[in-house]
Amino acid sequence: MISMKFEAPKGTRDILPDEMKKYNAVMAKLRAVYERFGFQPLDTPAFENFGLFASKGGLGDSVKDELYYFKDKSDRELALRFEFTASLARVISNNTNLPKPFKRYQIDKVWRYDNPQAMRWREFRQADVDIVGSASPLADVECLAVAVECLKELGFKEFMIRINDRKLVDEMLSSFKIIKVKDAFRIIDKLDKIGIDGVKKELKENDIETKNIEKMLSTKGTNSEILAELEKKYKEVNTLKEILSYAKYIGIDKYLKLDLSLVRGLAYYTGPVFEVSLGANVSCGGGGRFDNLIKTMGGPELPATGISFGVDRVVSVMIERGMFKDELKNEIFLVSVNDSVRDEVMKICNQLRTEGISADFDLMGRPLSKQLQYANSLGISYVAVISDKELKEKTVKIKNMKTGEEKSVKIKEISKSIGQ
Amino acid sequence: MISMKFEAPKGTRDILPDEMKKYNAVMAKLRAVYERFGFQPLDTPAFENFGLFASKGGLGDSVKDELYYFKDKSDRELALRFEFTASLARVISNNTNLPKPFKRYQIDKVWRYDNPQAMRWREFRQADVDIVGSASPLADVECLAVAVECLKELGFKEFMIRINDRKLVDEMLSSFKIIKVKDAFRIIDKLDKIGIDGVKKELKENDIETKNIEKMLSTKGTNSEILAELEKKYKEVNTLKEILSYAKYIGIDKYLKLDLSLVRGLAYYTGPVFEVSLGANVSCGGGGRFDNLIKTMGGPELPATGISFGVDRVVSVMIERGMFKDELKNEIFLVSVNDSVRDEVMKICNQLRTEGISADFDLMGRPLSKQLQYANSLGISYVAVISDKELKEKTVKIKNMKTGEEKSVKIKEISKSIGQ
Repeated sequence: MISMKFEAPKGTRDILPDEMKKYNAVMAKLRAVYERFGFQPLDTPAFENFGLFASKGGLGDSVKDELYYFKDKSDRELALRFEFTASLARVISNNTNLPKPFKRYQIDKVWRYDNPQAMRWREFRQADVDIVGSASPLADVECLAVAVECLKELGFKEFMIRINDRKLVDEMLSSFKIIKVKDAFRIIDKLDKIGIDGVKKELKENDIETKNIEKMLSTKGTNSEILAELEKKYKEVNTLKEILSYAKYIGIDKYLKLDLSLVRGLAYYTGPVFEVSLGANVSCGGGGRFDNLIKTMGGPELPATGISFGVDRVVSVMIERGMFKDELKNEIFLVSVNDSVRDEVMKICNQLRTEGISADFDLMGRPLSKQLQYANSLGISYVAVISDKELKEKTVKIKNMKTGEEKSVKIKEISKSIGQ
Repeated sequence: MISMKFEAPKGTRDILPDEMKKYNAVMAKLRAVYERFGFQPLDTPAFENFGLFASKGGLGDSVKDELYYFKDKSDRELALRFEFTASLARVISNNTNLPKPFKRYQIDKVWRYDNPQAMRWREFRQADVDIVGSASPLADVECLAVAVECLKELGFKEFMIRINDRKLVDEMLSSFKIIKVKDAFRIIDKLDKIGIDGVKKELKENDIETKNIEKMLSTKGTNSEILAELEKKYKEVNTLKEILSYAKYIGIDKYLKLDLSLVRGLAYYTGPVFEVSLGANVSCGGGGRFDNLIKTMGGPELPATGISFGVDRVVSVMIERGMFKDELKNEIFLVSVNDSVRDEVMKICNQLRTEGISADFDLMGRPLSKQLQYANSLGISYVAVISDKELKEKTVKIKNMKTGEEKSVKIKEISKSIGQ
């Protein structure tokens, strides 16, 4: 017999029931909102051929460092997915008959070989929506609208989606006569991390003129003010203008903030980009338009746009802020006072379960006090203590464990009494 | 630009929306029933330290052939999980303060490096419930009861759970004076595949006396008849007797069939074993008691029992048998007759979504006929065609796409009219 104590592999963790219930609640809400917005579920394998990831946006072999790469027993190069977009692009290429626009969601785990630290696990969950096949800003607005509705549904009051357009930034950088556009993008993307002085320093080190970029990055004002100013000089402001006008029309403009400093690191974005924040420096997702990606990966030429939540981040912020209410659930634990009632208690319990109530009873032959202690430790909403007397009278006292209230209920009416 | 066409890795597949909706429906039902029976969600990493799997029931390094094994960049030996029990045992060992019995469920993907063939994918989904900490047959009955309720809830009418007890088979083999017990188990386990003649042949090749085993394997009769017969000779019949008597008490005995030929291959079962069948040779899950496993893996000494469904098998049988009904859903596609109504249609659509209706509209600026075609291809339940006239009159005609029926509805009352 081997006797060793194993832990979850480095960078991963178990999610115990109390927390997992919160994850499930959040994921169920996201799923419901996504479906209301016409997004449909798609599932893809947890791993893909490594070449698929390497081809994505021309990332090349260097992406190997960031993911779980392995070979199967036939020496195929595989890797655990580190996001869903490459798989989506593959599905689109493999199934050219899918009706367009193809609006799909995927909520599942992804893996990145990061250095684990607080909030950065090597295994985590993303919740993505993407629209493939529409080049219209309407599709971008759909992504923004579904994100806003998700956040409202989850109970967030203060949140903001920063938006920008890569084409506009391109045009601005070009008007500043900047040649090293890629480097400029990469450095600007670090703004949140290294601040404006850090960005300036790095730009200088790369021989990029800082004056105009600094001015661009510090643009302040309402969305309309910024738009009005930009319109005078730049034609690539049109998409943002259209997005913001649609947004206003459906009442989500107050959650959007035009921010010229937002470029987002990923090379494959081609137009509008989004970043969802739940407060200063608390990003919980983002996205943007990627009109070339599917073709780059060998698929047909199809425009696409999407937005994604980091589920773990959302859940942990909600826990931090006490946003999960300790709700009364339609669940009950039936306590047997002595052995003579155990069989009948089991029967009542199973009856309740078929009536849609979450019900449980003692499987250990434990005394009354231990049963109560167990029900307590599970945080169960209602408890009924059952003795021969209760069975004879066909009535039980149900205790609401949150309020301490007790009420007498006919055994046949337990489910009606605590069902919601 | 790299231009290559990738497929899903060998043995894996994509699940497109039509099918994925069915998976989601089945998993949601299993989750709901599991929770009603007091099982709580647990999540564990998709991969574990390889040693954990190697230690499980003393499987050793040979298990490497059956799973996706890889090393991370620090040369840690990892493997994708091929089932959930090893992870459960690890969680129990790592969290000794969890209230017992610990009733948990886990519904997720597992991976096996099998030869892919029809119905045997390398990536598939399991839905497990386990109870850790109770040695009582009540816990086994809980597992049987939850499985029965799941199958009923999913709409199965004809199903059967075969049950047996490894301890009883042990006792019987020992009374037959058989020494090579492990070999006998292994060979008996092949009965469904190679038939009684195959079993006899292999037993003979292994110098195992076949007469008594053959008699045991061909035992026929009702559960009570078999019990009555066995009771005369064997004491290990008691657990099955107790299980069947509890089962009768809660009305699930008609779904249970005592079958002395059922041993189940996995070495770690120690007592009752179960196998769920949806008809002749259509197994969709199983389980049993594993009282030594957690200790074997370095955890505390804790009895445990559980049952598991193969989700892919369940879904594919349900598809085969036409068990998914083409239900009318509260979903609508809003068709714009011309460009002048598009903005207003978008507004109505978003209003419906916030009211809980799944609503969608054209993102492509397509003509009427193409919009209808798209709505059709998505199989959407209701369609409303909207022109200036409709907007002026604030009334739309809603067409039920399943029945062809049309009705006139005030725009403000669409959600009430199709909401369920």
